[in-house]
Amino acid sequence: MMIKTLHLNRDKKKLELFLKKRQTDITEVMPVVERICEEIRINGDRALLKYTKKFDRWHAGKASQIKVTKKEMKEASRKVDAAFLKSLKIAKANIESFHERQKEGRKTWHQEKRGLIVGEKYVPLEKIGIYVPGGKACYPSTVLMNVIPAQIAGVERIIIATPPSPEGKINPYVLAAADTAGAHEIFKIGGAQAIAAMAFGTKTIPAVDKIAGPGNTYVAAAKLLIQQKTNVGIDMLAGPTEIVIIADEKANAGFVAADVLSQAEHGADSAAVVITTSGKLARDVRREIDKRIKEPDHSRVVRSDIIAKCLAENSIIIIVDTIDAAIELANRIAPEHLELQTARPWECMEKVRNAGAVFLGDYTPPSLGDYMAGPNHVLPTAGRARFSSPLGVDDFLKKTNFIFSDRMYLKQSQETIVRLAESEGFDAHAEAVRIRIEN
Amino acid sequence: MMIKTLHLNRDKKKLELFLKKRQTDITEVMPVVERICEEIRINGDRALLKYTKKFDRWHAGKASQIKVTKKEMKEASRKVDAAFLKSLKIAKANIESFHERQKEGRKTWHQEKRGLIVGEKYVPLEKIGIYVPGGKACYPSTVLMNVIPAQIAGVERIIIATPPSPEGKINPYVLAAADTAGAHEIFKIGGAQAIAAMAFGTKTIPAVDKIAGPGNTYVAAAKLLIQQKTNVGIDMLAGPTEIVIIADEKANAGFVAADVLSQAEHGADSAAVVITTSGKLARDVRREIDKRIKEPDHSRVVRSDIIAKCLAENSIIIIVDTIDAAIELANRIAPEHLELQTARPWECMEKVRNAGAVFLGDYTPPSLGDYMAGPNHVLPTAGRARFSSPLGVDDFLKKTNFIFSDRMYLKQSQETIVRLAESEGFDAHAEAVRIRIEN
Repeated sequence: MMIKTLHLNRDKKKLELFLKKRQTDITEVMPVVERICEEIRINGDRALLKYTKKFDRWHAGKASQIKVTKKEMKEASRKVDAAFLKSLKIAKANIESFHERQKEGRKTWHQEKRGLIVGEKYVPLEKIGIYVPGGKACYPSTVLMNVIPAQIAGVERIIIATPPSPEGKINPYVLAAADTAGAHEIFKIGGAQAIAAMAFGTKTIPAVDKIAGPGNTYVAAAKLLIQQKTNVGIDMLAGPTEIVIIADEKANAGFVAADVLSQAEHGADSAAVVITTSGKLARDVRREIDKRIKEPDHSRVVRSDIIAKCLAENSIIIIVDTIDAAIELANRIAPEHLELQTARPWECMEKVRNAGAVFLGDYTPPSLGDYMAGPNHVLPTAGRARFSSPLGVDDFLKKTNFIFSDRMYLKQSQETIVRLAESEGFDAHAEAVRIRIEN
Repeated sequence: MMIKTLHLNRDKKKLELFLKKRQTDITEVMPVVERICEEIRINGDRALLKYTKKFDRWHAGKASQIKVTKKEMKEASRKVDAAFLKSLKIAKANIESFHERQKEGRKTWHQEKRGLIVGEKYVPLEKIGIYVPGGKACYPSTVLMNVIPAQIAGVERIIIATPPSPEGKINPYVLAAADTAGAHEIFKIGGAQAIAAMAFGTKTIPAVDKIAGPGNTYVAAAKLLIQQKTNVGIDMLAGPTEIVIIADEKANAGFVAADVLSQAEHGADSAAVVITTSGKLARDVRREIDKRIKEPDHSRVVRSDIIAKCLAENSIIIIVDTIDAAIELANRIAPEHLELQTARPWECMEKVRNAGAVFLGDYTPPSLGDYMAGPNHVLPTAGRARFSSPLGVDDFLKKTNFIFSDRMYLKQSQETIVRLAESEGFDAHAEAVRIRIEN
């Protein structure tokens, strides 16, 4: 029941098989999710209360109770300790600094020549809904990573949806993070019903323009459905979290093992892949993982069963001949997280093409990036780093093209437009130019 | 059977009804599309040949014939006239100039402080598939608008899929445009089977990272499906084309009418909405449309039945009290195309929040933008301009976050990371920091 080791060249088939099984299947939950969404669309708050009672076991007397009050916010800030609040603020400052820089170059511009003006106008989205998982889980870092880029983009109204406890409470750490990050409203709703409520709008929940944030299969299915059935946007389709660690013979096996375990505690379906040029390191990493799991201290780690399952089923050590082969394999996997624990990490970085986020050197554990380095921790999964980017300011901004032409420029362009329009059989397109020039 | 006129204040209900019916429903075709995609996934080229025969009525002897040859490219360039080629080149130059400027600010950067380096690496996508509709339609402009931004982003391999005629031919205008724009390979495949082939890859068709380009309901359904079932990206979900024209009492009714007609010839399901402060202009526009439709010259326009249907069912003139009310309504509709035929179009532009592309003044017909002004003509539809942008260089680039920390920075950060990790119950995340500092 431990992490397996494969050789890139010797175990081609096994490796292919391992690399293939990475898609979350939402087909099974879709019929239920469709029913929930349809009911929210038709019955609004009434359906929302019904499903909150059913799934979150909270019986809210009326819809107005769904919104977190100022009093509740104050209570929460009293419940969390000063060290936590200080940590939030440090993290916030770093995340802000990164996303402020990211926003550079996102400014309205135009170019002008001989009577033609063309350009792009940048506008922040108006209303954003952010889903934050709840129940047993508590993710203040998710709140920061979603709300801060929206804030910096200039979104006017940022609402959070997060499921309540059976007593109708929201975790105080989540509320404190929402307050620190600058969310405008928080609603005690979860699951597919929360996504539908933010997409369609109810009397209590505002209809938003786009929904961001992670969630379970039901949430993922609801996001996919509303993207298909409504004109509300979503951030990305997120699969289970994953990491690839490239380590050479000089890497510290203890560090690698610790990062594998920190990846594994996310969930049994998360994946940790170590790619190394060193058979010795592979053995050392296995031994270190084994040692840590057996430590009495490890019993503290409530998630040890989850870790064991992740290691046995979704994790692997791959031995390759060269660092270049390691990077090539990582580019093919296009992992959410990529670590470069190699002698010359910046040289490797030059060759990295597909990854959500890269962690360079021995002293950059992913947990530094998860919580406070600044770059966003919402990253493309399941190979989507081949074509998509981490969450950021761009997800909360949009562009509008604009064009102005004077009569002279249009006249000069007439022949070109008419010729191209005619090739497509669009006579009225050509006519719209002619009438302006010939009258 | 003509375009109707409504008053914003008097006809609220009718207007709501009109504004609501804008979503393309792909539910009906989905089962067929699922079957086609699954067959392509399993049987590759064999299934591709089968469906090409079935839907495009072309019986290709073997899969290798699917690829357009250099000889065919040369033949095409002989078939198209010099004026067309010249027009293509002028359009290309403008489109390039706009997208080159758009790329500015998309450069790898980093910031450094006290042992922490964070940044973003920009990388072009590697393999792109572009769908170009075929059959009776012929859209060289679509080729330019999709291929050029991919080229400028630096995509290594740009392939085009476009359905063949029953003789296995591709329209020479499309081939000439593909050549001018710099596409690398062209395949004679269409419909859902083309999307599936580019997503899964077959012996003949390379598997791509992302698929762009417009198409019918089957193509749209296939794009949605592969986005859900595979880890291949898509550009956007496109609905029928639409325009909002804001016109004040000074606007030229003939110009407005011409633009309504040029919108209408796209298809019966396309929509033209005129919003005006002037009852007189509303009447004049109706009269001008009527006159044009009845002109003997109009019989030239093969699409007159399509135009009539679009005008009667999906188009409308709305009378409002003020230009501000017009802009507010346009922002709510968030149209693909927005025209500002007003006395002070730049002032109006300041207030435009949601639109794909804006055409300012009397001498900027949408056809100028469709073909050659430079900005992309692939625009968000069905209200998606509230949260998304026109196609552009950003769709063919992606970012990777990177983080480097030295031991000292990590040590200083330990408390913050540990406190936040503990609030989320992630002990191993905290441990990954501790082991690096305490050893």
